[in-house]
Amino acid sequence: MSTQHNPIRPSLLTRFSVDPLHTMTRRLAAVASGRAAPDLVLTGARILSTYSERMLTDREVWISGGRVAAIKPAGSWRVTGHAPGVVRDVQGGILAPGLVDPHLHIESSMMTACAYAEAALLNGTTTIFCDSHEIGNVADVAGVEWMLEDARQAPLNVFLTVPSTVPATSPQCETAGGDLTPEKIGGIFDRWPEAVALGEKMDFVPLCLGDERSHAIVAESLKRGRPVSGHVYGREFVAAYAASGVTDTHEAITGEIADDLIEAGVWVFLRGGPPTTPWHSLPQAIRAVTEMGASPKRICVCTDDRDADDLFLFGQDWVVRQAVAAGLSPEVAWSMGSLHGATRFGMENDIGGLGGGRRADLVLLNDALEVQDTWYGGVPVVEHKKITPVLDRQLSEARYRYPDAAYRTVILPEIGALTPELPAGPCRANVIGVGAQGEIPLKHEVLELAEARAWEPVLDAHDLCFVTILERHGRNGGVAHGLLRGFGLTEGAVASSVGHDAHNIIVAGRHEADMRLAVETIRDARGGVAVVSGGQVKALVALPIAGLLSDERGGVVAAQTEVLKREWSALGCTLPYMGFNLIPLSVIPEIRITDRGLITVPAMEQIPLFEK
Amino acid sequence: MSTQHNPIRPSLLTRFSVDPLHTMTRRLAAVASGRAAPDLVLTGARILSTYSERMLTDREVWISGGRVAAIKPAGSWRVTGHAPGVVRDVQGGILAPGLVDPHLHIESSMMTACAYAEAALLNGTTTIFCDSHEIGNVADVAGVEWMLEDARQAPLNVFLTVPSTVPATSPQCETAGGDLTPEKIGGIFDRWPEAVALGEKMDFVPLCLGDERSHAIVAESLKRGRPVSGHVYGREFVAAYAASGVTDTHEAITGEIADDLIEAGVWVFLRGGPPTTPWHSLPQAIRAVTEMGASPKRICVCTDDRDADDLFLFGQDWVVRQAVAAGLSPEVAWSMGSLHGATRFGMENDIGGLGGGRRADLVLLNDALEVQDTWYGGVPVVEHKKITPVLDRQLSEARYRYPDAAYRTVILPEIGALTPELPAGPCRANVIGVGAQGEIPLKHEVLELAEARAWEPVLDAHDLCFVTILERHGRNGGVAHGLLRGFGLTEGAVASSVGHDAHNIIVAGRHEADMRLAVETIRDARGGVAVVSGGQVKALVALPIAGLLSDERGGVVAAQTEVLKREWSALGCTLPYMGFNLIPLSVIPEIRITDRGLITVPAMEQIPLFEK
Repeated sequence: MSTQHNPIRPSLLTRFSVDPLHTMTRRLAAVASGRAAPDLVLTGARILSTYSERMLTDREVWISGGRVAAIKPAGSWRVTGHAPGVVRDVQGGILAPGLVDPHLHIESSMMTACAYAEAALLNGTTTIFCDSHEIGNVADVAGVEWMLEDARQAPLNVFLTVPSTVPATSPQCETAGGDLTPEKIGGIFDRWPEAVALGEKMDFVPLCLGDERSHAIVAESLKRGRPVSGHVYGREFVAAYAASGVTDTHEAITGEIADDLIEAGVWVFLRGGPPTTPWHSLPQAIRAVTEMGASPKRICVCTDDRDADDLFLFGQDWVVRQAVAAGLSPEVAWSMGSLHGATRFGMENDIGGLGGGRRADLVLLNDALEVQDTWYGGVPVVEHKKITPVLDRQLSEARYRYPDAAYRTVILPEIGALTPELPAGPCRANVIGVGAQGEIPLKHEVLELAEARAWEPVLDAHDLCFVTILERHGRNGGVAHGLLRGFGLTEGAVASSVGHDAHNIIVAGRHEADMRLAVETIRDARGGVAVVSGGQVKALVALPIAGLLSDERGGVVAAQTEVLKREWSALGCTLPYMGFNLIPLSVIPEIRITDRGLITVPAMEQIPLFEK
Repeated sequence: MSTQHNPIRPSLLTRFSVDPLHTMTRRLAAVASGRAAPDLVLTGARILSTYSERMLTDREVWISGGRVAAIKPAGSWRVTGHAPGVVRDVQGGILAPGLVDPHLHIESSMMTACAYAEAALLNGTTTIFCDSHEIGNVADVAGVEWMLEDARQAPLNVFLTVPSTVPATSPQCETAGGDLTPEKIGGIFDRWPEAVALGEKMDFVPLCLGDERSHAIVAESLKRGRPVSGHVYGREFVAAYAASGVTDTHEAITGEIADDLIEAGVWVFLRGGPPTTPWHSLPQAIRAVTEMGASPKRICVCTDDRDADDLFLFGQDWVVRQAVAAGLSPEVAWSMGSLHGATRFGMENDIGGLGGGRRADLVLLNDALEVQDTWYGGVPVVEHKKITPVLDRQLSEARYRYPDAAYRTVILPEIGALTPELPAGPCRANVIGVGAQGEIPLKHEVLELAEARAWEPVLDAHDLCFVTILERHGRNGGVAHGLLRGFGLTEGAVASSVGHDAHNIIVAGRHEADMRLAVETIRDARGGVAVVSGGQVKALVALPIAGLLSDERGGVVAAQTEVLKREWSALGCTLPYMGFNLIPLSVIPEIRITDRGLITVPAMEQIPLFEK
């Protein structure tokens, strides 16, 4: 990462604001040896050393040109005879390297990369490795490359793990906007130095079974000397998955599978989600270290997916603190959140620690490891838990502007019937059952429907609502109808253009009119997530970029998301919107609905809604 | 390393005998999931896991195509229904990854890379990172590239850290055969995928002081995303050295400097030398871990320099055992000798552990961590501590043949006077004093010499012998005379074409005739190290390749070296031949002699032998 020259306006604070190390070694050596003055000295500090996993006391950090020139005993700058540009006494606070999040999807937050940076920096995160497979599913290579341009303009180190599994299944199962072939993936690697690894290879069963396209995609990364990120469930798949060249995964949900993965040579990223979500697997998986005795040296922590509002509360710093809560020392836990991820991706000479020559991406922590201040490339960007005015202005005025094509991805023909025709006589219905706990797997339930004159009594009798998918990539205008049982929606409608992974429009409701209003609202907003009730739009997060991303700042998206969640809950929905967005994800058991209709998983069979 | 196709005869066992991983993932996945048979199963094993730093029991390793397909519970192969090619029960022995030596100079052993491989494999070492700066000092880029060709033909993974400091000083100080400019170094990086880092930047004082050429050389590596290896003494230099972009060193001689280096973000390679040599700094430096509490995760062990005979006795395995003797667990120590070096150079996805898809470079150990068997790319190369017949044949018949130019590097004009003229009257002499303990630094002593008729009584009176340097690169035929005090040589002569770092010929003796015989012997052998006594050649290691390397097999070189050492000691020399070879190394205090004459260090002033 240190070798790329600045392709961005120099007036902006970006990854490129710090010059490559090879142009700076003489300057840094002069400062470190006391022959020249540093720009900034942070003195009176404890240092959380990710290298030795110890806390060092009474130190100071000398910064020059946005890099660490040296760490010295506190007070050393006084005796050099050179007055630094700025000296700040952090009064015994803890200085630590900025966090490195080795696996996440920016799109989950419904923010652009520039907007995401705000929350990341507040959380002390200065480097992220993102897998932009959502925008890839909508807009193919172009979508991935828009987001890379966005990332270059962000005040954050953003690297790409190239989306590896787009579409998630096949055109027979669903209509997506993207189809990332091995050739296209190779092209992304060749054009973008930010592309440092292959993204999570989600089709782990086909990969283990030797699927040709899957292995060809893995080969594109390996033959360039780039590693492959993974996504695997089930201890029985670990050996074949590792043998396929995969060397990290973030899906370990028990200590046992984490342990298996470590022994198979796979880096384990412990995923911390908000504590109430099923993503929060860290407390289980960390047992590989805390109870089973594995070294933590090849273990990281990561966030993976975050709603916008959660991102401000449950960032990578929170995940690190969860590792401490699980029994690790602060030094080891912070190292798992910073240096280890840098090492996994071969960047430990530039980030993840406060060694000589490293980027001056660092944070000031209190004893609870809460981030007080953040410096990005030596520039203060967070002070007393608030974004600094300079950064605030840049984030308001100079976020990347996605091209017009990115704003034209929700392409709906005239909207036809959003509810299925009432069956003429008694029949069996294949229904999607939502578990009582809102579990991610959905149950395939078969209901006997008596003859009826209208839908209302049928829905009432069986706790049903309609769920409809509308193809929105302008390919075929496909519409599929289904029935959800146990979703809790008795009035109004909810809809989203984010439905995974093809990102068609999903709408659920009890009445055609509400559903239509929700879909039209999303269409008019060029994408979004909406809640309709009483004939009115109660909440909307407009997602005009690829139907996935807001073009507002992070705080605005978070506020809109809070309203959305509140209104969503008010309707009684038993799945949160993130879970709702997974209803079309035809890789999770037992039954899903895509624009092609109902599909059973893992059999991958299409079945009709009604059978005689 | 996994991406390079085979440029070598397929019939030979080399690094290229194992295909790149990206061509093998489907095959390995099929084996790992039990759909296809492995070539080899090693069952009934304990596994020393470098990933978790634990010992796993009752396992078996499945190998296919020279790579690890999977590690399974012992007996698993039976239930797959597929008969492996070979099954071997290792009866509870320990299987561990082959060792990775992250820093050494092949030339120290006076062997070619192909010959070196024999000793390495016997020691359980399957990957080495060598810095071929000796042959670079003799033959410039061509020498480095000969050795790379040699390395490609060796049954060993050999990678290059590109020589960074050739010449060690300047043409004003000495006449070397090589001058590796930044441009030439960049060219080596661009032509050779094996060139994975910059070699030890020995001129640490100029680097810390901002020397332009030194930093330009560092930049050639950094701008290609390659790391820089180091060589630094003195805690006061650590900060500026790290700020210059150096991220490893093997020269830490105390726990304190090792600790400073770790905190500066520098990987520490603990060097184990034979216990009687000054190179054996591991027991001191390891205190950073054992007493000062640093994590061992960024610490490796290495050998650096080894005489040929010592190489068979004190290999990387011995160094690992020294780390255990110093208090580390076997699992951590073996990891420092394998996975950590692989990680430092970004190769942990291919070597250093027994994870899925890795090269099947592994060893069978007893409980004392002594190497019994070695497999290289899944092929048995050492069995019961002996080279296997297949490998034995290859090492005898198919070693790389260096080009003729490599055999023509000792270019001496007619040999003139090898002893200085007797001063006409009383004078002061600047003499090189050998310390009583044979220390590496040499003392600058000033002697008052009375008028004399012959050298003999003068030498006797002051415990002196002659030392002479002859330029041998065919550049200027320069000859410099000096006097050694306390070397212990009272009869005969010793001579060498290895004298560091310019590798001119150094000869010491009491009588012109003995010295002449020694030099002529070396000249006729086209390079070597010789001992002359009683008018006869008592020992000679012929080094016809670049005046540095034997073209014999490792065992022959070791046997010759043993004879050499014996005869060398018999003459009473207080410096061993390795120390003798350092007499011209004009970067070590206080006084040295090169073909340009006497030089004081660090002042770098040339001084006359005799002054009025």
